[in-house]
Amino acid sequence: MAAQVQRMSRLMVKTLRDDPADAETLSHKLLVRAGYVRRNAAGIWSWLPLGKKVLENVTRVVREEMDAIGAQEVLLPALLPKEPYEITGRWDEYGAELFRLKDRKGAEYLLGPTHEEIFTQLVKDQCSSYKDLPVILYQIQTKYRDEARPRSGILRGREFQMKDSYSFDTTDEGLAESYALHREAYIRIFRRLGLDHRIVSAVSGAMGGSASEEFLAPAAAGEDTFVHCPSCDYAANTEAVTYVAAAPEAVDHPAVELLDTPDTPTIETLAEHLGVPASATLKNLLVKVDGEIVAVGVPGDREVDLGKLADHLAPAQVELVTAEDFTGRPDLVRGYVGPQGLDKVRYLADPRIAAGTSWITGANEEGKHARHVVAGRDFEIDAYVDVVVVEDGDPCPKCGTGLKLDRAIEIGHIFQLGRKYADAFQLDVLGQNGKPTRVTMGSYGIGVSRAVAALAEQTADEKGLCWPAEIAPADVHVVAAGKAVQIELALEVADQLAAAGLRVLVDERPGVSPGVKFTDAELIGVPTILVAGRRSAEGVVELKDRRTGEREELPVAEAVARLRGV
Amino acid sequence: MAAQVQRMSRLMVKTLRDDPADAETLSHKLLVRAGYVRRNAAGIWSWLPLGKKVLENVTRVVREEMDAIGAQEVLLPALLPKEPYEITGRWDEYGAELFRLKDRKGAEYLLGPTHEEIFTQLVKDQCSSYKDLPVILYQIQTKYRDEARPRSGILRGREFQMKDSYSFDTTDEGLAESYALHREAYIRIFRRLGLDHRIVSAVSGAMGGSASEEFLAPAAAGEDTFVHCPSCDYAANTEAVTYVAAAPEAVDHPAVELLDTPDTPTIETLAEHLGVPASATLKNLLVKVDGEIVAVGVPGDREVDLGKLADHLAPAQVELVTAEDFTGRPDLVRGYVGPQGLDKVRYLADPRIAAGTSWITGANEEGKHARHVVAGRDFEIDAYVDVVVVEDGDPCPKCGTGLKLDRAIEIGHIFQLGRKYADAFQLDVLGQNGKPTRVTMGSYGIGVSRAVAALAEQTADEKGLCWPAEIAPADVHVVAAGKAVQIELALEVADQLAAAGLRVLVDERPGVSPGVKFTDAELIGVPTILVAGRRSAEGVVELKDRRTGEREELPVAEAVARLRGV
Repeated sequence: MAAQVQRMSRLMVKTLRDDPADAETLSHKLLVRAGYVRRNAAGIWSWLPLGKKVLENVTRVVREEMDAIGAQEVLLPALLPKEPYEITGRWDEYGAELFRLKDRKGAEYLLGPTHEEIFTQLVKDQCSSYKDLPVILYQIQTKYRDEARPRSGILRGREFQMKDSYSFDTTDEGLAESYALHREAYIRIFRRLGLDHRIVSAVSGAMGGSASEEFLAPAAAGEDTFVHCPSCDYAANTEAVTYVAAAPEAVDHPAVELLDTPDTPTIETLAEHLGVPASATLKNLLVKVDGEIVAVGVPGDREVDLGKLADHLAPAQVELVTAEDFTGRPDLVRGYVGPQGLDKVRYLADPRIAAGTSWITGANEEGKHARHVVAGRDFEIDAYVDVVVVEDGDPCPKCGTGLKLDRAIEIGHIFQLGRKYADAFQLDVLGQNGKPTRVTMGSYGIGVSRAVAALAEQTADEKGLCWPAEIAPADVHVVAAGKAVQIELALEVADQLAAAGLRVLVDERPGVSPGVKFTDAELIGVPTILVAGRRSAEGVVELKDRRTGEREELPVAEAVARLRGV
Repeated sequence: MAAQVQRMSRLMVKTLRDDPADAETLSHKLLVRAGYVRRNAAGIWSWLPLGKKVLENVTRVVREEMDAIGAQEVLLPALLPKEPYEITGRWDEYGAELFRLKDRKGAEYLLGPTHEEIFTQLVKDQCSSYKDLPVILYQIQTKYRDEARPRSGILRGREFQMKDSYSFDTTDEGLAESYALHREAYIRIFRRLGLDHRIVSAVSGAMGGSASEEFLAPAAAGEDTFVHCPSCDYAANTEAVTYVAAAPEAVDHPAVELLDTPDTPTIETLAEHLGVPASATLKNLLVKVDGEIVAVGVPGDREVDLGKLADHLAPAQVELVTAEDFTGRPDLVRGYVGPQGLDKVRYLADPRIAAGTSWITGANEEGKHARHVVAGRDFEIDAYVDVVVVEDGDPCPKCGTGLKLDRAIEIGHIFQLGRKYADAFQLDVLGQNGKPTRVTMGSYGIGVSRAVAALAEQTADEKGLCWPAEIAPADVHVVAAGKAVQIELALEVADQLAAAGLRVLVDERPGVSPGVKFTDAELIGVPTILVAGRRSAEGVVELKDRRTGEREELPVAEAVARLRGV
């Protein structure tokens, strides 16, 4: 099967020598400079010919592996009626992230950010018996999210390509199996794409459900942080890390002692005033949980992750307190709160505030702190909550080794949703026992356009993009140095390679210097560069490996044979 | 290459015996009943597994033929910023048909109905020299139009799949060539799809530009009407038909005579009162053109096509007159207008009102008409306009034979846009002469999802869908009658066919009667049905051609060999 030869002189690709002014990440810079994508508006991008080829290659791999696990491809609309999202409450929950619009009759619609509701309705309509299940449905589709800060090029767009799939089972075991099928398919997909990735535990957040893992592609440009253990196989989204507190040594602590600490309303000022490390102090953050003031105690050197706290307390609404909340509350002395005086306030604490540990904390009096305040002796903890921001070196919950913190791009996510959506839509099928059985669901996503950016991030070097073979826009980039004999040879080799089924890009642009052509070839990042250069008259070409830079001169026939073997 | 075997027991397809209540057209009924598509909201549809396969097959054919003419595939966003559409005025011109929305910052966007503006901007950004042209860019993408009356299933959706392409040339000859390339590609595409089609002249309407042709698929469910000549090759969109008036015989008409015609404000009442055919009367329609009252004269038995009239007078705004417009205009006697008294009003007329023809028309007096009112003698015509609704039997403008009027579905449209959009965006490239040269454009569309419906309309029969081979969701539909030996044989044959590269659907559903399976197979419409029935034990199967109904019993090996040869 002869593949096509694409001539650079005809291809709409305009390479740039300089990075676009607004680009921060490597993939953004290079994909724009190499002419793969072009920005239309904030977070809204066009895929140009080279970019479309790469996107299509990623799509093909995803489709093949989804088909391989028996998933059935469908295509649902992106423009969706409001009603199903009202039923689940997500019409409101999504907040400003949802693109909403009205049609000519005033009916309300949204642009789908994810399709759980619509798939649930679909299966309710199509499946009536346990015999119709399990079923896995997927689509590769344009999705919409009105990100507050669309940036990093196609890494985080407002319109983007996603593979989303949904599994429907009658039993928990069935769901576990559908989940496992996806997990394996995702591993195969990311391996084929050449994406270095980690599978980490994740909290499922607003999606609800039980088991959930993220597929992360480590990359400096990543917006996600994850931890992994250098000693064991533990890895997790930072929001999912759990802290296992060691039991403190039994120590006879002195009695509580009051300290005069004027003008020390913050941990920094307090630690400096007393000449102690921040970790010796106990910080008490006040928040409102469904309007009720609650205190959260963490060591003074740690930060509370408000997202984690919100997830922990969901569905309750969590807000920070404001100055007004202190009026009429003489028990709450702003900047000098200590748990030993909080009789009327629920007290949550980090597991590090274990019973028997001793702290310097507020004395509930303006300008005063207290030391030797011992958990369990001087104050009670209503509940332990794991809500501090994870830091490099925190102990691995599996083996205790210091965890490493790294940045990554989320490229996939698999969820065991359970019956949340099935409950919302009363999705039952007739069970084997003849009774209606509530269906249990999974939801699984791959950021297809984001995977392109992640691949670019992981594989690019200082010269430009550097695609893995299966994803590259071509197999071989043939460069004709410039003279007639070189151009002739380049076109001839290109035809031979195409006849052998290889996808070939040939740079035969007249009037473009060899230097520019070489630079462009390295920027565009096709795995093999074949140069018809100074030995063209002898029929000798140069093969260059884009990644390693290794070069070799070979007669044409040998070069073609070598590439056919690839 | 082994293709897949799709088991009906695992496929999400729920066939229905009854037509959906809201369905009017054959394709709508059958695509829903056979489980290809499902409605989410007015004009918004989901493609289920079988439908997605058909849609994908059509997409593949379109892509291959676009690639073959050197067109380059891109993917532009569907969510588009307002500004470029303001520059061309289409933000307003589109009226209620455009889906508009705001993002979280209040910036205005639209969902793209067609992408001329965005492609023009893209080429302005990417191409700077005549050497970069010609270029043809295409995308296969989801489009949005807020139709006033979305109906007929996927024939006229509000979200739909379209292939749109755009050509950019520096010369008119280049544009003509790009246009011709598309015309040929479209013919190949529709031939491969098995779509019976006609190419008709079209007026380009709001798109502007010079040459324009439509590809129409004749079908009773079509929303377009076109004419074709039974004698010559003439065919046209009804809006593009031109009338060639024969010169009237020179006759000495009597002088104008006043008739007393009380209570005859309409042609019907007048013709009945006088006992003459409506065609002997002259109807004078008053309209406002940019606020000025203008009269349009047509024979009394013909209707004015207001769309044609608007196109003819564009960019002027055309409105019908209302009762208020007659106040202060004693020269305009409502219901009794005649051109012989319209000195202050511009008079446009159908070419049938040729100089020397005589008419019965209003006498510009309440309750009075006049006869022997002769064009050119008793009144002057300011301009001839070809704006009557075409009727069956109207003369062919090429050969004079009576035209046939038929309904069709518009499946493609090709336009020579010219420089309208290039002017709006100042799209120039450096010409061969070293000077800036304005680019000339073409715009070309194929309704990809609509083509699926058109195919269904043209090929279905009373038993169900009946797909052409290249488009069908499978090559063979294997039906296992029901017994274990039949199911075993069916699965074995299915595997053999798949190993030979055929796409196979096998109906091995336990507990489903053979009758239901046969009915479903005919409804689903795969070209060949292979039945493992009563002679399964002998290894004999039945091959049935879905279209012709021809059946033949064959040993398995022969049946497989036969189908491999297809």
